[in-house]
Amino acid sequence: MSAENPAPPTPAQTPAVNLPPVMNQVVLLHRPEGLLSWDDVELVQVPLYELAEGEALLHNEVLGVDATVRSWLSPNKGYLPPVAIGEPVRCSSAGRIVASNCDAYQVGDVVTTLAGWEEFSIVRDDFFTTHLSAADPEFDVAAFLALYGSTGCTAYIGMVEIAKVQPGETVVVSAAAGATGTIAAQIAKIAGANVIGIAGSDAKCDWLVNDLGLDGAINYKTEDVLGRLRELAPKRVDVFFDNVGGEVLDAVMARLAMHARVVLCGAISGYNETTKPAGPANYLNLIQQRATMTGFLAIDEVPRFGEIAEHLRAWVEDGRLRYQVHYFDGLEASVDALNAMFTGANTGKILIRMSDSPI
Amino acid sequence: MSAENPAPPTPAQTPAVNLPPVMNQVVLLHRPEGLLSWDDVELVQVPLYELAEGEALLHNEVLGVDATVRSWLSPNKGYLPPVAIGEPVRCSSAGRIVASNCDAYQVGDVVTTLAGWEEFSIVRDDFFTTHLSAADPEFDVAAFLALYGSTGCTAYIGMVEIAKVQPGETVVVSAAAGATGTIAAQIAKIAGANVIGIAGSDAKCDWLVNDLGLDGAINYKTEDVLGRLRELAPKRVDVFFDNVGGEVLDAVMARLAMHARVVLCGAISGYNETTKPAGPANYLNLIQQRATMTGFLAIDEVPRFGEIAEHLRAWVEDGRLRYQVHYFDGLEASVDALNAMFTGANTGKILIRMSDSPI
Repeated sequence: MSAENPAPPTPAQTPAVNLPPVMNQVVLLHRPEGLLSWDDVELVQVPLYELAEGEALLHNEVLGVDATVRSWLSPNKGYLPPVAIGEPVRCSSAGRIVASNCDAYQVGDVVTTLAGWEEFSIVRDDFFTTHLSAADPEFDVAAFLALYGSTGCTAYIGMVEIAKVQPGETVVVSAAAGATGTIAAQIAKIAGANVIGIAGSDAKCDWLVNDLGLDGAINYKTEDVLGRLRELAPKRVDVFFDNVGGEVLDAVMARLAMHARVVLCGAISGYNETTKPAGPANYLNLIQQRATMTGFLAIDEVPRFGEIAEHLRAWVEDGRLRYQVHYFDGLEASVDALNAMFTGANTGKILIRMSDSPI
Repeated sequence: MSAENPAPPTPAQTPAVNLPPVMNQVVLLHRPEGLLSWDDVELVQVPLYELAEGEALLHNEVLGVDATVRSWLSPNKGYLPPVAIGEPVRCSSAGRIVASNCDAYQVGDVVTTLAGWEEFSIVRDDFFTTHLSAADPEFDVAAFLALYGSTGCTAYIGMVEIAKVQPGETVVVSAAAGATGTIAAQIAKIAGANVIGIAGSDAKCDWLVNDLGLDGAINYKTEDVLGRLRELAPKRVDVFFDNVGGEVLDAVMARLAMHARVVLCGAISGYNETTKPAGPANYLNLIQQRATMTGFLAIDEVPRFGEIAEHLRAWVEDGRLRYQVHYFDGLEASVDALNAMFTGANTGKILIRMSDSPI
């Protein structure tokens, strides 16, 4: 089927193609300590899901790799329950419906959901699943996961709606070469701010300044973050978009400007630790600088993602916003894909590229 | 002179009474480690100040003892520079003008200023000095320092304007039996909140519940704060007004409700430490609970203190707001007065009561 010649509506329970009887998935064997390894998870072959009333079957074309995936493998209850032992590792996904027993989805529809490390997933007409498009072979599911979905919307909400970045302000973004950080930093540039990125290699810092056009970059692994902030941000820091926590957070907290806004998006430095890292010892600068630290989760704004994506799309179209994808191929690469986020091997969004076709 | 029969305007430079040629003051010898002792400061007799053009002489009737006084004795630059070695210890004060070479003040005027541990201080027509009243022997300078000045205005700004406390919310106040805490907790009650105080003795906890009418109190020295919060705040904590920091802050951070507001007023637990205490390890709950932590200094709102004091006055008059004063007498008691704040010996505002009369 194609956009020009769409397939006729498919009766419920009738797959568009002959689906395989089995599929691969990666299930959690026990909770990891530190980085995930193949001792903690296993690639298994399981029967394809059978659809109950109200369910549809999604073929996962790309799986999103986010820091939060690691947090779901820990035993602590977060904003979602931990992944249970024996269940597939949870992740974001985008793909196309291949069979439907749900009025909300037709075969061929492009949807995104909270799926798992598996070839096919069950979707329902619920909060976690968003219908992105009717059948459209041109729809770029990777662009959705890398930019127009929660990644770009997180960056937009944090920088525009929470930090309320203003022209001429000094903005610092940690994990600036990461999926959300690259978008947040570029949005701050678009808003007219002076933007400094913090990243973990000279190559990333060069890319941030020379390719993305940031005003400065700090390699936190080799440079003194506080000292470099004194040089690069002589008027101190009005907005800090933090994805890292730990020492990087503390260093930036020491350089807050009056009425600064610290936006907490995550704390990747602690996600692989078994003990809770120390909090920001410099938090009392919030008093001295009459500053605010605010946590947020973009999941609250899912109903507005479409509207926010329109802003992002306009900036992409006029050349002011770019996104970068770092692909890993297949479920065999899933463990490496997740760990790349924590070892800093990636630039931009990490995606696991699955097969294009369900058969 | 009296309110009914005020003295005629006094010519500049003419004192109303014969002033003594010398006065007492307590000067800083070297920076304290831990609690202040008489090894760190000295009570000395010095010549009375001579007035330059634009200056007036204030007779200090009451001196305010605030946690921030201790911070000014440390070498770190805060929102004001440290007290210099050889200078009197800095503090808030209220009293009456006894000689004036400044158009803004007449002899007899009641003023408040940032003065020092001394019998008389120089005031000018500047940011730090507020004219409270024309000559009025009835004016209650102690009530001003304990409630209507920065103490009550800090509580009001933090609870009403920053936390924006709402009816039915659960509010926790640390150092709840302290000067600012007692006012902040009562304001939250007036706003219709369920209010839990944290204090350092059973007697204070009894007083908070039985006299001030709070809904619960926790003795952080003998009780498990987190466990007690689970009992007393089953719907978690919407507003935390923190004057303490450290473990108390971390415990409350573990129990934040969705969209909670943590208002940072101070961190008395760390003011006597020579090393910086750890930050709140539970700060990531700000993300999970979409919560905010905001620091403020009431000094920014000094021009609005008069307007804010009218709200406080109305609540005092209708019996809903009370303040408590804990007096120490004379400069000889100044060191004990400051340390009482950190050892928890006080309930309510600590004031150093000086002589009523300048001679």
